[in-house]
Amino acid sequence: MNYQDILESLYTEVLSLPDPGRIPTYIPELAKVDPGKFGIHLQALDGHSYRVGDSEEPFSIQSISKVLSLCLAFSRSGDDIWQRVGKEPSGSAFNSLVQLEYENGIPRNPLINAGALVIADMLISLLPHPKADFLAFVRTLAGDPNIHYDEKVALSEKQTGFRNAALANFLKAYGNIQNDIETVLDFYFHQCSIAMTCGQLARTFLLFANQGKVSWTGESILTGSQTKRLNALMQTCGFYDEAGEFTFKVGLPGKSGVGGGIVAILPGHYSVAVWSPRLNDKGNSVKGLLALELLTTKTGYSIF
Amino acid sequence: MNYQDILESLYTEVLSLPDPGRIPTYIPELAKVDPGKFGIHLQALDGHSYRVGDSEEPFSIQSISKVLSLCLAFSRSGDDIWQRVGKEPSGSAFNSLVQLEYENGIPRNPLINAGALVIADMLISLLPHPKADFLAFVRTLAGDPNIHYDEKVALSEKQTGFRNAALANFLKAYGNIQNDIETVLDFYFHQCSIAMTCGQLARTFLLFANQGKVSWTGESILTGSQTKRLNALMQTCGFYDEAGEFTFKVGLPGKSGVGGGIVAILPGHYSVAVWSPRLNDKGNSVKGLLALELLTTKTGYSIF
Amino acid sequence: MNYQDILESLYTEVLSLPDPGRIPTYIPELAKVDPGKFGIHLQALDGHSYRVGDSEEPFSIQSISKVLSLCLAFSRSGDDIWQRVGKEPSGSAFNSLVQLEYENGIPRNPLINAGALVIADMLISLLPHPKADFLAFVRTLAGDPNIHYDEKVALSEKQTGFRNAALANFLKAYGNIQNDIETVLDFYFHQCSIAMTCGQLARTFLLFANQGKVSWTGESILTGSQTKRLNALMQTCGFYDEAGEFTFKVGLPGKSGVGGGIVAILPGHYSVAVWSPRLNDKGNSVKGLLALELLTTKTGYSIF
Amino acid sequence: MNYQDILESLYTEVLSLPDPGRIPTYIPELAKVDPGKFGIHLQALDGHSYRVGDSEEPFSIQSISKVLSLCLAFSRSGDDIWQRVGKEPSGSAFNSLVQLEYENGIPRNPLINAGALVIADMLISLLPHPKADFLAFVRTLAGDPNIHYDEKVALSEKQTGFRNAALANFLKAYGNIQNDIETVLDFYFHQCSIAMTCGQLARTFLLFANQGKVSWTGESILTGSQTKRLNALMQTCGFYDEAGEFTFKVGLPGKSGVGGGIVAILPGHYSVAVWSPRLNDKGNSVKGLLALELLTTKTGYSIF
Repeated sequence: MNYQDILESLYTEVLSLPDPGRIPTYIPELAKVDPGKFGIHLQALDGHSYRVGDSEEPFSIQSISKVLSLCLAFSRSGDDIWQRVGKEPSGSAFNSLVQLEYENGIPRNPLINAGALVIADMLISLLPHPKADFLAFVRTLAGDPNIHYDEKVALSEKQTGFRNAALANFLKAYGNIQNDIETVLDFYFHQCSIAMTCGQLARTFLLFANQGKVSWTGESILTGSQTKRLNALMQTCGFYDEAGEFTFKVGLPGKSGVGGGIVAILPGHYSVAVWSPRLNDKGNSVKGLLALELLTTKTGYSIF
Repeated sequence: MNYQDILESLYTEVLSLPDPGRIPTYIPELAKVDPGKFGIHLQALDGHSYRVGDSEEPFSIQSISKVLSLCLAFSRSGDDIWQRVGKEPSGSAFNSLVQLEYENGIPRNPLINAGALVIADMLISLLPHPKADFLAFVRTLAGDPNIHYDEKVALSEKQTGFRNAALANFLKAYGNIQNDIETVLDFYFHQCSIAMTCGQLARTFLLFANQGKVSWTGESILTGSQTKRLNALMQTCGFYDEAGEFTFKVGLPGKSGVGGGIVAILPGHYSVAVWSPRLNDKGNSVKGLLALELLTTKTGYSIF
Repeated sequence: MNYQDILESLYTEVLSLPDPGRIPTYIPELAKVDPGKFGIHLQALDGHSYRVGDSEEPFSIQSISKVLSLCLAFSRSGDDIWQRVGKEPSGSAFNSLVQLEYENGIPRNPLINAGALVIADMLISLLPHPKADFLAFVRTLAGDPNIHYDEKVALSEKQTGFRNAALANFLKAYGNIQNDIETVLDFYFHQCSIAMTCGQLARTFLLFANQGKVSWTGESILTGSQTKRLNALMQTCGFYDEAGEFTFKVGLPGKSGVGGGIVAILPGHYSVAVWSPRLNDKGNSVKGLLALELLTTKTGYSIF
Repeated sequence: MNYQDILESLYTEVLSLPDPGRIPTYIPELAKVDPGKFGIHLQALDGHSYRVGDSEEPFSIQSISKVLSLCLAFSRSGDDIWQRVGKEPSGSAFNSLVQLEYENGIPRNPLINAGALVIADMLISLLPHPKADFLAFVRTLAGDPNIHYDEKVALSEKQTGFRNAALANFLKAYGNIQNDIETVLDFYFHQCSIAMTCGQLARTFLLFANQGKVSWTGESILTGSQTKRLNALMQTCGFYDEAGEFTFKVGLPGKSGVGGGIVAILPGHYSVAVWSPRLNDKGNSVKGLLALELLTTKTGYSIF
């Protein structure tokens, strides 16, 4: 069975299942999405791509953007970034302040909100035009100039993002935010607001299956070793308090977002993006998780 | 460069480095070990094996035994075991009671002490002669009848194991221990006391690189899917509060013990055991971690 | 209105109210009590006593005994005891292990279970015949030889006291228990099992209203300063996670037990004991709290 | 010995002792204070007053202001305020976010920072001109129009108050702040910046020794019952993580501030204010605590 057949088979299977998940309501603009959307795009390293469902419809990538900002900071500053953010799974809810307090303002990893705020702060210090430069970076990875911030979503997050504002202030109290809090939050809410299709996401993440090299240009963004390490971080920290469950069932490094997207990588083979807006109580897409579990089961390939 | 050359090269390199680690003293019998010991054994799936240093000297496997007890419970009871123990990384010290309290007596995963006590309790209920049957199981995996409990070590742990006794009582208070606490602790202290050489350990763990099949007998202990899942658990939970760091630097599923041993797996290729008794402050072997990091760097292969 | 009129008036008022509380079931022997019992005994320093309801029926004093063991340890060892136990309110549930872990085995105060276990350990080291000597001490305070351990209750607690066994092992792991765990638990379960009537309790606690002096014998058990300090401890720590609420509403130092008893003191004036077995979700007697709130409201006297 | 003799005697004694405390540096404007300052003012209900040392020099009252804002909110809204803030001691550091998270945005009591921010939010909703009206209220209690906000201190706190900004955002995320965060923080930083002398403070707090009545005007601010309850709150929650210690040693309800001030009350008798800027590691004035302990020891009167 080839990838297209597998995608179609699992698409049909998952589509037919009931979905106990719920659309998150804390970002009003995101709550407007059609909960029935479901799409998958698998981008193979050999250049072929496979897709089913609503794979060409853009959605808010949200926390998936944390991997991209981390990638840019890591490519620029190397291992220096680990002085301000850890590499361990958080073992608790995705925006918990508790652990941060016990560990003196060093977020456990760059894929939880606190860690992503620190990475955003780093990028603001590094980049001449932070928001424009970050968007340009994402477009380069995707090989696609048609990727944009969704200003409505960014504004909606800003107006309700009190927990993130609390985190940023808390980090600043520990000296782990160097720029103005307003600037950091503005950058962060914008990176989360980026709208992409499953196709764009899968193409953007292909470099993590390709030792850090962008296939369409041959440009190396990360070294092979850095890529392996970033994949390792996605594996242990990419799914909030469900990283273990995802590793257990799917067996691929990946990252989810509250927009209902999930992207995953089989190093040396492919990247895959899934989108279905209803989330489980851990904040991950119910049908997205199911689709990826079926993908590695049906193909027989995972990293383990 | 073949595996033997790589092992010899990294052995020389690591041996020459200073070791800031310390021998743990909380189990008096373990504190008697010679801190200068250092050995590696790599067992390839193709039947070849490679070794350097003190690889034929037995040491206390300690927490590495948790993978073996989990393997036996998983092979017997399947997914039922997840009703009494989780699959998520713990995000805190290896014998913390805190998380257990917040999560009502369900340990976060079977590779922390609390989880291993629950698995021990399951095995006591499942096995006619728990200690003898478990030892026989380990011998079967290793293909080696010369593996024993070290009664001196087991006794030493019993006399000082107040934290484990606290954990067991706490789990019992939540109804997650069914047998007598004394019986559970006796089983647990015995499983930890097992003495094995790097060679025996690497051979014992080869089934996890082999889809659950014991190479020397062809017997399937776990299904391919179960093996993948157990490897995933080692990846996210095998190194206490350093699982992220290990995944980041080494990129292989594995498990460490306070006896200074570490075992790791490259699925489809090999299992490898390292032993060096000095531990870092997270409880993992300093030179063992270094040796495995060099191994995946020099071979260029990890799971990512 | 004199005390007798006030007691009768509030007794009638409280008796007529619905009681949303529940009998605790975790100590089976205690669950057998008649939930409708309700009695009050007020013992004035001038020698007069006042009582209503089931004030002459013995019940299990449970945690109220912690004040008596603390009193004995304090009278014998003075301020040395504060090296092994703190004086701060715990700010969390009565048998939480969390705080103990964060504070390295020093219980927050002697009136939570962990602290009372440390006090029990001290008494075992101090007293030639710990259980007999402690009972004799209580009888001396009460001026009444007819006070006994309830062996059935002590046994019932032992058989189900896994949380206390966990605490004791945990304290031992931190070196804050010096005697055998079994001995400490046996003493502790016995002290909690003591059966007393409201009358006996009020008489026993009268010394705390009398600067540490036993009225019937003139013997000074504590100095005036020590008595003031012990009262202060009852005020801030005597009601688990409801000490603030009790201080707020009643305004007297006191101590409650899961047997449904509460004892309180107005220094220089009286001690009072109340008994009603149904507990609120913080573990304190619903009608007992209400009765004491009405007592200080109707008399117009509290310590504030 | 009368109060004046006692004050002079303890003043000499405490002044001569070494002071291991330190001036806090996190509010730069406060760090400029002369650390050798030491003053006491005792205001008796009978109209007499007694003072020693730097008792007529104004200092920043800081957290002592929390009692005054609570008093105003309680007098206006009565028991409704307890729907948004608790009455239990916090059992942890004074600005911890942890407990707030576990208790869903309801601060443990109104005398920790989080609780005081909620009270500030209430006052902003209640008062036509919040800052002016609150200052007028304080002047009324003190019977003294010469009390002012210190704008330099308020600004200094604003520029460094990231933890308080984190708290306010966090409370807002839980819906427990209704006004703009900037407005709430501005009010809060101003209330903390109020400068008063020991004399002004003692006179201001005299109503808590007087059943809620202002002595100089006869005006009742709180009922007798409300006063008793507010005193109870000071007793259990007035000293951060040292409330138990203060109750144990001093035995009076009171409140401290990081400006080095402490005020305490003996209901029915007096209020007393002490000022010495060096703080212990719990954030309370070292010599202030000592002076009050000696006061209750030498007078022989406390509430217990």
